[in-house]
Amino acid sequence: MDRRRIISLLDPEWTRMTGLMRQSLSSCVPLLDKTNCSIMDNMGKMLRPMLSLLMARACGKPDEDSIRFAAASEMLHNATLMHDDVTDGSLERRGRPSVMSLLGSGAAVLIGDFWLSKAVELISSSGNRDDVMKLFSKTLSDLAEGEILQMEKAGTADTSEEDYLRIIYCKTASLFEATCVLGAISAGGCPKYIDAARSYAANAGIAFQIKDDILDYAGDESLGKPVGVDVAEQKITLPLLEALKSSDRVEEVRGMIRDIRNHPDYCSEVRRFVYDNHGIEKAAVRLDGFISRAEEALVPLPASVEKDMLVELVRYNAFRRV
Amino acid sequence: MDRRRIISLLDPEWTRMTGLMRQSLSSCVPLLDKTNCSIMDNMGKMLRPMLSLLMARACGKPDEDSIRFAAASEMLHNATLMHDDVTDGSLERRGRPSVMSLLGSGAAVLIGDFWLSKAVELISSSGNRDDVMKLFSKTLSDLAEGEILQMEKAGTADTSEEDYLRIIYCKTASLFEATCVLGAISAGGCPKYIDAARSYAANAGIAFQIKDDILDYAGDESLGKPVGVDVAEQKITLPLLEALKSSDRVEEVRGMIRDIRNHPDYCSEVRRFVYDNHGIEKAAVRLDGFISRAEEALVPLPASVEKDMLVELVRYNAFRRV
Repeated sequence: MDRRRIISLLDPEWTRMTGLMRQSLSSCVPLLDKTNCSIMDNMGKMLRPMLSLLMARACGKPDEDSIRFAAASEMLHNATLMHDDVTDGSLERRGRPSVMSLLGSGAAVLIGDFWLSKAVELISSSGNRDDVMKLFSKTLSDLAEGEILQMEKAGTADTSEEDYLRIIYCKTASLFEATCVLGAISAGGCPKYIDAARSYAANAGIAFQIKDDILDYAGDESLGKPVGVDVAEQKITLPLLEALKSSDRVEEVRGMIRDIRNHPDYCSEVRRFVYDNHGIEKAAVRLDGFISRAEEALVPLPASVEKDMLVELVRYNAFRRV
Repeated sequence: MDRRRIISLLDPEWTRMTGLMRQSLSSCVPLLDKTNCSIMDNMGKMLRPMLSLLMARACGKPDEDSIRFAAASEMLHNATLMHDDVTDGSLERRGRPSVMSLLGSGAAVLIGDFWLSKAVELISSSGNRDDVMKLFSKTLSDLAEGEILQMEKAGTADTSEEDYLRIIYCKTASLFEATCVLGAISAGGCPKYIDAARSYAANAGIAFQIKDDILDYAGDESLGKPVGVDVAEQKITLPLLEALKSSDRVEEVRGMIRDIRNHPDYCSEVRRFVYDNHGIEKAAVRLDGFISRAEEALVPLPASVEKDMLVELVRYNAFRRV
């Protein structure tokens, strides 16, 4: 994926979107302002505003609200990352010390709250489109509920495939969906286009998270992203679920996950079980299914370079290495 | 203050409001649902929905939105308390173990996020009243910004009176203001009544926080609320600011605050300084000023039992012992 090409295509909206983010997040509290600037200087892929603005263009004509929704989705995403760092005790974020490790968990919670509040403020300053705030607040609660369900399931090691799909929908796909649907709505897309945006984004979001979960087993640590974190945190994801399907060692493996805090050596054993039972390959087949469904969902949209890029983005996801 | 009398006066709205809270906060994630129920079984004073519904009645005729706003303000308040417990490392809340101490800081952050998202959802399901969501999201960011400013000032011990008033406006009075203004708006109050609600609530909120800060110096620990926490956490509040005003030991005392983590014995020394320099009495005089301004603000409202209770509530605050 050529990120620079997409961003330059998305101008002038992209530049206005990043400007709006900086403006919204400025504060006269020096500690907050400085931290916000330093986060914005190291923003990562910015996939959500990219999707939002591409979808807006693919469905109609972006307006001021398209800019707001794109900025708000990235701000909400970063708010949840700051809170996740507290939940997971993560000292690094995007290759640099996390807010939590620099300023403590209290500051990470509060600065996350500030980003979240500014996202809500941006959404609330949009034109009076009835369902916009409802959709956004549903995503807010999905994000929290998904993480809590994942936390609850981690201890008991009884995550079913249904639980897993629900968790990844809530923690990743729900915000993909909101950002694309809001993009489509703001650009004046017809109901058919809005449905297409919803279906594309839900499938792309699930695919994105499945790929993340595959990389946790099969990634290349030298590229900067640690592997093996999920098993160590007792998270049962698709590669393990797929490996368990054809196995007669289900109870034994689930028992190891439950007991992994006392037996760190179980980590490599569970990971070997996944490799031996082709969990990664089978998860990759499932991933392909979601990617295809995301692509198919775009069929109703008129041909455009932005539509092509939406296809490219979801395909690229299958091959990304970090 | 006879809490039961106010609640029984506020029925049927009160019962509908608590029912709506339970309904909004129900979840099919068992850990979340169980925790939410247990928080709701031990809700404390519930001052914010009380103010909101009293103000709605005092300004006009409460409707469905009045119920929603009252519930949302209490939910947002509880969300911030869960996050504050993480920030302050508080193991107790309302005499029971805090969510953080029971389930860890990660869960406290996420469950707080869930309560916050449900408050936003309730506000967003209100009728299309333009400024409602803007006011609510301003309060959201005030809450975070106030806490962060307080955190920043704690380390440097250079809190001015202006900083202090800004901190307590943001962390307490802003939500008082939102809850009363939303009550007045939802009941169809005219602009004059809405202004009265705003001024009453801002002054009452500041008075409430000043009283809290006085109790931290002069409270009775046997009633269940610990004292001396603020100085130990390097927070400079009004009793100390007032004591500093007439003193020639300003730099020495600020130096002790800066160094208090290495010298816990400075706590009692700073507290003695406050007593000796009549910081508590002087803060109480300031408190009376805010209470009077809150009362005066209500003058434009027509006579009603609810208006009398709003006066009673803000006066009671001067005498409360916890």
